[in-house]
Amino acid sequence: MPWVTDSSAAMLVDLYEVTMAAAYRAEGIDEEPAAFELWVRSLPAHRNFLVASGIDDAIDFLDSWQFDADAIGYLESLDRFDPQFLKSLAGMGFDCDVSAVQDGTIVFGSEPLIRVSGPLLQAQMVETFLLNAVGFQTMVASKAARVRLATGDTPFADFGARRAHAADAALKGAKAAFVGGASSTSLVLAGREYGIPVSGTMAHSYVLAHDSERDAFLAFARQFPLDAVLLIDTYDTADGARIAAEVATTLATEGISIRGVRLDSGDLASLAHEVRGILDDAGHDEISIFASGGLDEHSIAALKSAGAPIDAYGVGTSMTASIDAPHVDVVYKLVHDRHGARMKTSTGKETLPGAKQVFRNEAGGHFTGDVIAVMDESLPGTPLLGQVMAGGERVDPPESVRTAQRRLLDGLAALPEELKRIDGPADPPYPVEISAALSALRSTVIGSRR
Amino acid sequence: MPWVTDSSAAMLVDLYEVTMAAAYRAEGIDEEPAAFELWVRSLPAHRNFLVASGIDDAIDFLDSWQFDADAIGYLESLDRFDPQFLKSLAGMGFDCDVSAVQDGTIVFGSEPLIRVSGPLLQAQMVETFLLNAVGFQTMVASKAARVRLATGDTPFADFGARRAHAADAALKGAKAAFVGGASSTSLVLAGREYGIPVSGTMAHSYVLAHDSERDAFLAFARQFPLDAVLLIDTYDTADGARIAAEVATTLATEGISIRGVRLDSGDLASLAHEVRGILDDAGHDEISIFASGGLDEHSIAALKSAGAPIDAYGVGTSMTASIDAPHVDVVYKLVHDRHGARMKTSTGKETLPGAKQVFRNEAGGHFTGDVIAVMDESLPGTPLLGQVMAGGERVDPPESVRTAQRRLLDGLAALPEELKRIDGPADPPYPVEISAALSALRSTVIGSRR
Repeated sequence: MPWVTDSSAAMLVDLYEVTMAAAYRAEGIDEEPAAFELWVRSLPAHRNFLVASGIDDAIDFLDSWQFDADAIGYLESLDRFDPQFLKSLAGMGFDCDVSAVQDGTIVFGSEPLIRVSGPLLQAQMVETFLLNAVGFQTMVASKAARVRLATGDTPFADFGARRAHAADAALKGAKAAFVGGASSTSLVLAGREYGIPVSGTMAHSYVLAHDSERDAFLAFARQFPLDAVLLIDTYDTADGARIAAEVATTLATEGISIRGVRLDSGDLASLAHEVRGILDDAGHDEISIFASGGLDEHSIAALKSAGAPIDAYGVGTSMTASIDAPHVDVVYKLVHDRHGARMKTSTGKETLPGAKQVFRNEAGGHFTGDVIAVMDESLPGTPLLGQVMAGGERVDPPESVRTAQRRLLDGLAALPEELKRIDGPADPPYPVEISAALSALRSTVIGSRR
Repeated sequence: MPWVTDSSAAMLVDLYEVTMAAAYRAEGIDEEPAAFELWVRSLPAHRNFLVASGIDDAIDFLDSWQFDADAIGYLESLDRFDPQFLKSLAGMGFDCDVSAVQDGTIVFGSEPLIRVSGPLLQAQMVETFLLNAVGFQTMVASKAARVRLATGDTPFADFGARRAHAADAALKGAKAAFVGGASSTSLVLAGREYGIPVSGTMAHSYVLAHDSERDAFLAFARQFPLDAVLLIDTYDTADGARIAAEVATTLATEGISIRGVRLDSGDLASLAHEVRGILDDAGHDEISIFASGGLDEHSIAALKSAGAPIDAYGVGTSMTASIDAPHVDVVYKLVHDRHGARMKTSTGKETLPGAKQVFRNEAGGHFTGDVIAVMDESLPGTPLLGQVMAGGERVDPPESVRTAQRRLLDGLAALPEELKRIDGPADPPYPVEISAALSALRSTVIGSRR
């Protein structure tokens, strides 16, 4: 079946990027200098902040960007492009300068996450892929960070692969969930590719495939004598807990220990209390309780409030498909060209002109506010965008997902308490201002159109 | 960057599938006969029916399923699997029989879409990928079919790539949208891979990159003298329409015609009326109006009701990310093994036992009701599942996406009118019954556990 890979990724492009490129070339402006920026227009409902993710993949994409022979052949077959244009496209690499925030950085609406500066044609044509990669992963990492706020120190695993939107979302979603604070993933491929710890035990089908729960638990624990987690809700959860405890007692004589039991349905708070009681009464307070089954940050917060004795969570669909905010309004717009700063004034879709920087202010270990500024302004605070590519060459080697996760955890620690609310909008929201110079530039650009 | 491809797809698997497989093998039951079925538990809110899609990819996946050396090496590195088990996995191909509904088939909750029958280990291990592929594509095709019900005979293009959940969702989402009734896609890669017509014109950045809208329109139309579509809302839509009309008049003397204008923001109904007036007054009733910008089936239905003179729609985020139903509750469960029919009785997650078939009844050219039956029952109506793989070999060659789209369009035509409502739940919903034999089997299986 067809797949997107490094060699076909440049074709993950909307046709209009190619028609515009052809026109730019015919007009002789394809190599004119231009700058585009990528940002999220505004925070989705139910989000007080976002977590940048997928920047690493954006850079990888730009690093290997090219139209291979298959791509050129297909574009030729459309019979609408000048052969000379297609020839030039066939030989083209990516030569732009790129600045970006780092994966795991906490960001807000209107703040540029990536700036691409270089020949108009190239800077334009990479739009679709950058939006696709950064929008999705930022969405998932942002949701995962909310789950992290709910779980606190209790670990949670990404279980999202099966409900992710196609294969790449399972893989990149596992990465973004880890960046956003997940402890592990169920997805084997993500473990291999990113070094994320993998976790997982048994499905209901395993229990069903045996004569009884007892047979299933005994067989499984003998296979994994140190870390078996037994799924106890296939028939009746309390019965399952009693059987798990008996099995643990039986197997102790063989030197086998049961690591945990998993609850995947029903009223998890009351079941966790009941199961904890059954295990403890049987002398098995060493057996942990894992919970899964339609969990999100709200149900986890409720379980925490109820004092449910749960030692680890599995979170799937709600996080990987970001059910309560299944897209972010990410855009990639021309902000500067040979004429100077540019902006769009469409109703409700107005943009900020010119190449920009974001300065983040901190006091007492907490973020106190951001200022979106003209790129070369010198303002107090830490600039969030740094150069990541020069002339199409990567500036630094890729970093590990653990580094990005560490950055996010540091960011969460520095976030004002009000911003950490998961039960509603922060009031006041995080302050993001526009610098005086940017405001003046905006007036100038609007004025020049009148 | 890492990608899922045919060679890594078997690793798109939750770790627990591998641990279960290892246990099955150690217990000597890995080759025992088993049957698993995939279905959607219940329709999402806002859906009166679903459209099966992604079955083609499921079959492709099963056809090429294997763990390559990289996969085996990684599993070895986890230090929890028996080397003999991993060796057997390395040499394993897929040997099961598979039955499935065809892509583009209208389906309902609880109806099996795929049945995999064969060695327990294999039939179990393919779970994650099948859920991922069929769940996502069925979700998108089902949403697209609603858009199709709203647009009627007016064509609509898939614009979803940029907001799709990572790269594979853009590609497979374009396919599913086409199966669900879209006319074309903006995604170049989907055009190449599936032969879907591609469409697309210019972005706001193209207009911004010129001194004026007039310059942009003139330059673009000269490049695409037969089919230029001009985006007229970068600054002011009515002004844009006037400029487009003037450009059309100017270029007519050069033998160049403007195919259309596109509106992408604002009140599309009133703007379409206004723009139509401007174009017609200027003698350009041949110029079509395209509309895009956050559209879904509801806003399109409203535009239709308002008599908005729109000749084609572009639909993006709402369809590809299926915003109002961003996942379907798709599951893959053991239904039969060496002990006979199996079912799960967890609270709220009870399943139907045994291998099943669905019979669809029709009268007067309309579907009248489905019956979920025991697999080998002989009932009136058309069976929806047919064999697609025998002993791991594909039975028929892949079909084109056009064939699947045709099946969906025929299905929509045969759907009872009440089911075609997009403004609320069908009342009554489509009748899906359980056969007497299946009901009896269910009682027997539940009874045998008491």
